[in-house]
Amino acid sequence: MIPRYEIRLAGSGGQGLILAGLILAEAIAYFEHKYVVQSQNYGPEARGTDSKSDIIISDEEIDYPKAIHLDVLLAMNQKALDANFLDLKKNGLLIVDSGLVKDLPTTQLIAMPLTQIALETTKSPQPANMTALGALAVCTQKVSIPSLSKTLAVHLKKDWLEQNQKALKAGARFAKKRLAGNPSGNGSV
Amino acid sequence: MIPRYEIRLAGSGGQGLILAGLILAEAIAYFEHKYVVQSQNYGPEARGTDSKSDIIISDEEIDYPKAIHLDVLLAMNQKALDANFLDLKKNGLLIVDSGLVKDLPTTQLIAMPLTQIALETTKSPQPANMTALGALAVCTQKVSIPSLSKTLAVHLKKDWLEQNQKALKAGARFAKKRLAGNPSGNGSV
Repeated sequence: MIPRYEIRLAGSGGQGLILAGLILAEAIAYFEHKYVVQSQNYGPEARGTDSKSDIIISDEEIDYPKAIHLDVLLAMNQKALDANFLDLKKNGLLIVDSGLVKDLPTTQLIAMPLTQIALETTKSPQPANMTALGALAVCTQKVSIPSLSKTLAVHLKKDWLEQNQKALKAGARFAKKRLAGNPSGNGSV
Repeated sequence: MIPRYEIRLAGSGGQGLILAGLILAEAIAYFEHKYVVQSQNYGPEARGTDSKSDIIISDEEIDYPKAIHLDVLLAMNQKALDANFLDLKKNGLLIVDSGLVKDLPTTQLIAMPLTQIALETTKSPQPANMTALGALAVCTQKVSIPSLSKTLAVHLKKDWLEQNQKALKAGARFAKKRLAGNPSGNGSV
């Protein structure tokens, strides 16, 4: 039974975190049979700076759809980490891209070279959003990789799908190894 | 000054309303300089049935991100209309696809053949989401068609972009004619 579980994906405009949030929300709702609200906040500031996607999961209908105490924060760059870290619960799970985040406010985190894994797996840094999603799924145990992969197949055209599914699986594999090496769930850069 | 303005796009799973909601939210935030929250609720029910996207606009930061009294409801089929009509404010604006909605709970509405316009303009019913977005933009005056068109260009690949921009403009043109013929903003099927 999950009363309420809050995930935030934070990074910059071009990193595809809104797509990642949509895929995560849909997969959890349809395959894990939860209630999910997924939202984006846009400020009136200039385009292409910050991007964040909030996903709230519950076994019950969600009355208050704003994330307030994050159980999980994924930070895809330093600015996103700095701007959102205070919203993470004490003992919440912090996942960062170790290639893009250097100044860490805590040692309670899982740092993985998410963009680097995407680049090595697909020859493009773009599917780092999917590498992150795969890693996050393994760390949180809230949704399976096959469920995410099937949801991707509904949304992406064939020529993009394979690359994104590869990146998803590569992120999951890396996270599994990292957790196996450090069963407490915490790791350092 | 807009204290709070709520729009809901409602229809079925394949109609592209989540994309339409994202485009609308981004265009209003970046080009009209408002605060915007865009959200989707997913229930644990089976895939591909209902789909809705809520967009809340304000000149101030948005404290309560759940749509409660809709200023605008777009209903892309009968089930979406029936399920969401009670959330529409008294004197709120109802926009329906006249080809897919037949049983109308009010005469205070703008009914347009949105899917038919998409089909005639692009030879595909798929961009009906964009026809709807164009019509909604004209009816609500909350965002310009060029702003929506530029936002589309950020998100869609070239081979889909032209078709979607065409559909957007066709929806806007139709709505302009409809409003010109009936300045009260209401029309019947």
